Amino acid sequence: MKKLVLIFSILMLCNACKDASVEPKVVSNINELNDAIQNVKAGDQIVLANGVWKDVEINFSGQGTEAKPIILRAETPGKVTIEGVSNLKIGGDYLEVHDLHFKNGYTPSRNVIQFKINDTLIANHSKVTNCVIEEFTQPDRDVSDHWVEFWGRHNELSNNYIAGKSNFGPTVMVMLKGNQHIKNYHQIVNNHFGPRPRKGGPHGETMQIGDSGTSMTPSHTNVENNLFERCNGEVEIISSKSNNNTFKNNVFFESEGSLVLRHGNYATIDGNIFIGNDNSEFIGGIRVINTGHWITNNYFYKLKGSTFRAPLAVMNGIPKSPLNRYNQVTDAVIAYNTFVDTKTPFHFSVGSNVSQSEVLPKSEIRSARPTRTVVANNILYNQTPFEYPIKNYDKVDGVLFKNNYTNSANKSEVQPEGLQTVELDVQEVSKSLKVPTYDTKQIYSGFDFETITTDLFGNKRDKDNNSLGAIINTNNHNDLYNQSNYGTSWFKNQKNDSVSQTIEISTSQELANAISNANSGDIISLNAAEYQINRSLPVDKNITITSKDKNNKAQLVFTSEGTAFQMKPKGILHIEDVVLKGNNNQSAFKTLDKNMKSAYGLWLKNTEVSNFKSVLEVSKGSFSDTISVTNSIIKNCKSGIQLNKETNDKGDYNSEFVYITNNTFTNVDQDVLNYYRGGYDESTIGGNLVFQNNTITKSGQTDKDNILIKTRGIVNVIFANNSFINNPVKYISILWGEKGQKPENNEVKNSGEIKVVQNLKLKLVY
Amino acid sequence: MKKLVLIFSILMLCNACKDASVEPKVVSNINELNDAIQNVKAGDQIVLANGVWKDVEINFSGQGTEAKPIILRAETPGKVTIEGVSNLKIGGDYLEVHDLHFKNGYTPSRNVIQFKINDTLIANHSKVTNCVIEEFTQPDRDVSDHWVEFWGRHNELSNNYIAGKSNFGPTVMVMLKGNQHIKNYHQIVNNHFGPRPRKGGPHGETMQIGDSGTSMTPSHTNVENNLFERCNGEVEIISSKSNNNTFKNNVFFESEGSLVLRHGNYATIDGNIFIGNDNSEFIGGIRVINTGHWITNNYFYKLKGSTFRAPLAVMNGIPKSPLNRYNQVTDAVIAYNTFVDTKTPFHFSVGSNVSQSEVLPKSEIRSARPTRTVVANNILYNQTPFEYPIKNYDKVDGVLFKNNYTNSANKSEVQPEGLQTVELDVQEVSKSLKVPTYDTKQIYSGFDFETITTDLFGNKRDKDNNSLGAIINTNNHNDLYNQSNYGTSWFKNQKNDSVSQTIEISTSQELANAISNANSGDIISLNAAEYQINRSLPVDKNITITSKDKNNKAQLVFTSEGTAFQMKPKGILHIEDVVLKGNNNQSAFKTLDKNMKSAYGLWLKNTEVSNFKSVLEVSKGSFSDTISVTNSIIKNCKSGIQLNKETNDKGDYNSEFVYITNNTFTNVDQDVLNYYRGGYDESTIGGNLVFQNNTITKSGQTDKDNILIKTRGIVNVIFANNSFINNPVKYISILWGEKGQKPENNEVKNSGEIKVVQNLKLKLVY
Repeated sequence: MKKLVLIFSILMLCNACKDASVEPKVVSNINELNDAIQNVKAGDQIVLANGVWKDVEINFSGQGTEAKPIILRAETPGKVTIEGVSNLKIGGDYLEVHDLHFKNGYTPSRNVIQFKINDTLIANHSKVTNCVIEEFTQPDRDVSDHWVEFWGRHNELSNNYIAGKSNFGPTVMVMLKGNQHIKNYHQIVNNHFGPRPRKGGPHGETMQIGDSGTSMTPSHTNVENNLFERCNGEVEIISSKSNNNTFKNNVFFESEGSLVLRHGNYATIDGNIFIGNDNSEFIGGIRVINTGHWITNNYFYKLKGSTFRAPLAVMNGIPKSPLNRYNQVTDAVIAYNTFVDTKTPFHFSVGSNVSQSEVLPKSEIRSARPTRTVVANNILYNQTPFEYPIKNYDKVDGVLFKNNYTNSANKSEVQPEGLQTVELDVQEVSKSLKVPTYDTKQIYSGFDFETITTDLFGNKRDKDNNSLGAIINTNNHNDLYNQSNYGTSWFKNQKNDSVSQTIEISTSQELANAISNANSGDIISLNAAEYQINRSLPVDKNITITSKDKNNKAQLVFTSEGTAFQMKPKGILHIEDVVLKGNNNQSAFKTLDKNMKSAYGLWLKNTEVSNFKSVLEVSKGSFSDTISVTNSIIKNCKSGIQLNKETNDKGDYNSEFVYITNNTFTNVDQDVLNYYRGGYDESTIGGNLVFQNNTITKSGQTDKDNILIKTRGIVNVIFANNSFINNPVKYISILWGEKGQKPENNEVKNSGEIKVVQNLKLKLVY
Repeated sequence: MKKLVLIFSILMLCNACKDASVEPKVVSNINELNDAIQNVKAGDQIVLANGVWKDVEINFSGQGTEAKPIILRAETPGKVTIEGVSNLKIGGDYLEVHDLHFKNGYTPSRNVIQFKINDTLIANHSKVTNCVIEEFTQPDRDVSDHWVEFWGRHNELSNNYIAGKSNFGPTVMVMLKGNQHIKNYHQIVNNHFGPRPRKGGPHGETMQIGDSGTSMTPSHTNVENNLFERCNGEVEIISSKSNNNTFKNNVFFESEGSLVLRHGNYATIDGNIFIGNDNSEFIGGIRVINTGHWITNNYFYKLKGSTFRAPLAVMNGIPKSPLNRYNQVTDAVIAYNTFVDTKTPFHFSVGSNVSQSEVLPKSEIRSARPTRTVVANNILYNQTPFEYPIKNYDKVDGVLFKNNYTNSANKSEVQPEGLQTVELDVQEVSKSLKVPTYDTKQIYSGFDFETITTDLFGNKRDKDNNSLGAIINTNNHNDLYNQSNYGTSWFKNQKNDSVSQTIEISTSQELANAISNANSGDIISLNAAEYQINRSLPVDKNITITSKDKNNKAQLVFTSEGTAFQMKPKGILHIEDVVLKGNNNQSAFKTLDKNMKSAYGLWLKNTEVSNFKSVLEVSKGSFSDTISVTNSIIKNCKSGIQLNKETNDKGDYNSEFVYITNNTFTNVDQDVLNYYRGGYDESTIGGNLVFQNNTITKSGQTDKDNILIKTRGIVNVIFANNSFINNPVKYISILWGEKGQKPENNEVKNSGEIKVVQNLKLKLVY
């Protein structure tokens, strides 16, 4: 497909060339560009001279025609970078943008690329192709923007590479408010959506089509043949919120989230590939809400998520749901899909929450089960048989199962006749592509099933040549995951395989220099000594600080007023086998107060931290992927690890993973750990805490909440094998029963109680 | 159009005839019919022999083809009547039903005609044409049914006459639940929908397309060229509850209600005619809810309704509305409409009820104003200028007015630039058709306006030939209201103009015989005397009982155990200048206990009613159009006029109009008047009471509610110029301030208080 589009693009260019009057107009600065745009006419080409275009706001307007589009392009693809505070707006007909590279900056407006200039100058039949948007993210994660915002009709985003958005807001957004923008038939094709980091809160979609107010609106956006690689922003990789959208032949590779039919109806999800590789239970598949969706010919490989992140999650709805909540699933067709080494493909009535009536209003209770839903001709193969193909969170009484086959027994609570255990043949075609087949003429032909005319690879299905599952034969099959099939003709996002250096250090000045000059991945090795440090050490790369002699640890004694280590965006700090001492007035680790545009990380191991005002302090907008403290000693600090500043109560939080294991905490006066997430939100993993094998003594004495270990709102908590001795608090911790949290094997002496509350009352966020 | 269809039908019949093998199969009873159906094949005709077919349930199944439909028809159109407990179900392809007459009965199932036999045998490409359904209504008004229920796709209801449904449930219903029934492209064309009486509660629509659960569903039903004549059932004549429906060239003649876009979006309402003739403020036009509707080329004549029944009501929505309530109006286009002698055409933010927050939950508050709505190229003409063309119930900040013209000044609160006062030319073409024009080249061309290619009469609009309003010229114009353009080829619903007889009476036996034998409209004239009557007198027609000598009134003295007069369906009883006396143990007037299938009426004038247990007692399912008591004396009764048995609290009530004027009530112990309507419903007129110029004395002494005149839940109440003397009650009445009710000029002596409550808490009914 990509090749076709390229050929087509070249033909279009040649077409434009044929017109003798067309001489590409090369411009070298924004003024020349503006002049060129002012005078542009159908068939013209405007060429941005190679170089850095910094702080430019380009309004590309004009009236091309189908035969004579107007093209704005780079002199050499990849040699024109748009940097600084810059953006691009497009308004008019048949306008094309080629070959630009957005990096090292962010947009001053709400969008990097916007398919309108204003409400009366809207783009139609226009496209952005062969471009890159790379980490063009807002300095402040809380500031919202979109990188590509569609308006108008018949616009195209094709063959681009787009990655690294860490701030608030979907990467690509399709706007539908207004008759000019509905029935848009936009094409989002052949793009490579590279990694989007976890956001630690909602609004981290890679793509959103409409919003909760457009669930009634026909969109007809086509999302085809794109690669979504590790798009981890939030629970929805794609959030379809309008009608009649098509998702076809896309590959979702190790992306923590799902293709979600959130609002709107009558979507087609055909021939997509979901590769989990068993890497994480957060990697999902397809989540179904609303009416009339057709989910056919999809291939699911090694997925192990459940509930919202199940391979195929069919949700319960809210009766008479408010417009922005959950409609019942009706008239869905789930047919001819193949599940390979995906233990429990089918999850029905996901989101059923009748048990939450105590803490949720009636308008939040998802009690309407899927109905008039057909599950037919699917094939389920597990190399190691797994006997629970169906997970149900409510009765399954509205789903018709017909001619589905698995190679495992079915010991699920739901055992439909239409799911049979049989011997399956399996052909292993490539690493991720296994094709299970079952030789039968028994294929279910439901209402309108004759409209399913091809398989995953486009091979024709008809009466005489049809079979179960997504693949009727391996003709035309491609590698399931091959980056080179997607994105631009010129950009490669391969990382340099630089070898990490070890830098040996003997003085505090050398330490400061080393931290400043090291390359990401380097190791700073401290000779055994006491280092007096009277300033903050900023960390903005991945470095490890360790003692050369693990039996004679270096001591870093901080006399600085500010924090000892200042955690900056992308700073990943590992400290191993080091003793850190403070002056009781500063933090050991502290983030910037603002502009924490990307995540940071902190890993302490075999390390002692003492005499600080606090161990870790963070700012509101900051986010760490992981905080890990293990085999360490924390003592004589006024407060401990504080991940509690994201208090907007809209589902955001300050850290995704927190591992606190095998440590001793002594005399930490308050907030030994304070890890907070507020608001009733289901868009994220919701935080993860492992608090295990720790000994906490004589701590919490000034804690104003009277709770030693605070985890309010955090979804995933393991709390086991700790000892709590002589801590003068009311509660050691309050765990959340509904999320399966329970204390295990903890020793409690002269300390408070470990309490479990079943249901937690949270603020509604919408 | 009708002629065309007839010619087409004849051609189809001839087509069938051409096949030599086709011999119409005449059947004479249900067994023969069932046999014939069992053996039917494409191209066959089954002919029902002339006569009465009583208590028949016909399942008409078969597989016709487009070229060879299967036809079920009457031997002679109009000579085959389906009577008794009967119905018709159709299942299969290309099936046609012609020429049948349903009357004198009702369906034993949920439908009279149903386009499916069961869930697997559904009709497609089938039609019912040239048939009549006449008062085929359930004996019990509370029993719900539909007369025509659509399922499947591509079915047709054409050239039928359908009238007289008085029970619960829309007359025509289009079902959309299931993929087999969506995108149905049903044709409802050329029908005559005759009078549907007021229902006195919700669920009295003449047509409903989908329900609140299908607001997301594409229906594509076409309702074209039908006449809706006095379809008064409830506030919605047509309730469109799905997407993409078309309403074109229909005539709404003096129908109390509106064409309502209740749920669903993207309707086309083009070239319809709304004739009110100033007859009633309950005759509405179009009511708009939801998104993307186009309302063009419509002609509004002499309409004077407001709020829900405005000529053009654009509603406020509920933010994030529940599925079954009110979405915001967005992206509506209201263009090229003509309003003639329609004083205030535009009503914006209808239903705004922020002031009701005290008694309504948040999920009921309609505060979302219309937005992105265009009102353009409309023309407003009032022969007598009227200066308030716009009524607004909230701010009007989301509506763009462009190039609208009126011949009156605009003193409305909203005075957009896009509505200008100009001199208009007017051509009076026929009684109801006046064509105002304004000669201007200033015609607004909004987004997609080029898709409006014709006017009301199908005359072509283009760049060179266009003008404001619904009519660009009167070429091709037809009579706006001509019954003969609609319905069957054979049925005439003209009433006989029988002359009313006066029957003179001297004995009670003669009276009973006269009532029994009179024709509707007759007058029974009583010679002056005392008539002892020891039985109930049933009334099932329109009769008047009066005294021959108004100065020497006849006295009817009832010794019967049961009620004096028994009001039966269709009984309209006028009593004038008569004295009625009871034995203190019976009612003067009482309805049947059940099976009050149609409305009754009671009119008392210059009449005295005394010594009854009660004046009027009704049963739960009963409904009177009008109860009128005027210039009369009511005395010494244990209770009065009781219209309080419809207590389902779902919006139903026992009488539409109650006029109590110029009477004296003395010693009526309780319920002098008890007129009740329960439940928060907006589907009906809501009851009407005029209580004026009455004198009430020494009454209410045993009233358990301690209220003399009870009007709870009744919407329209005039309460003026009455005298209340020596009534031992706490309240004379409790009026509803929010509905504009207030006591005026009443005299109160030694009686209770007349209270006004602003907001009334009512049970939510959905």
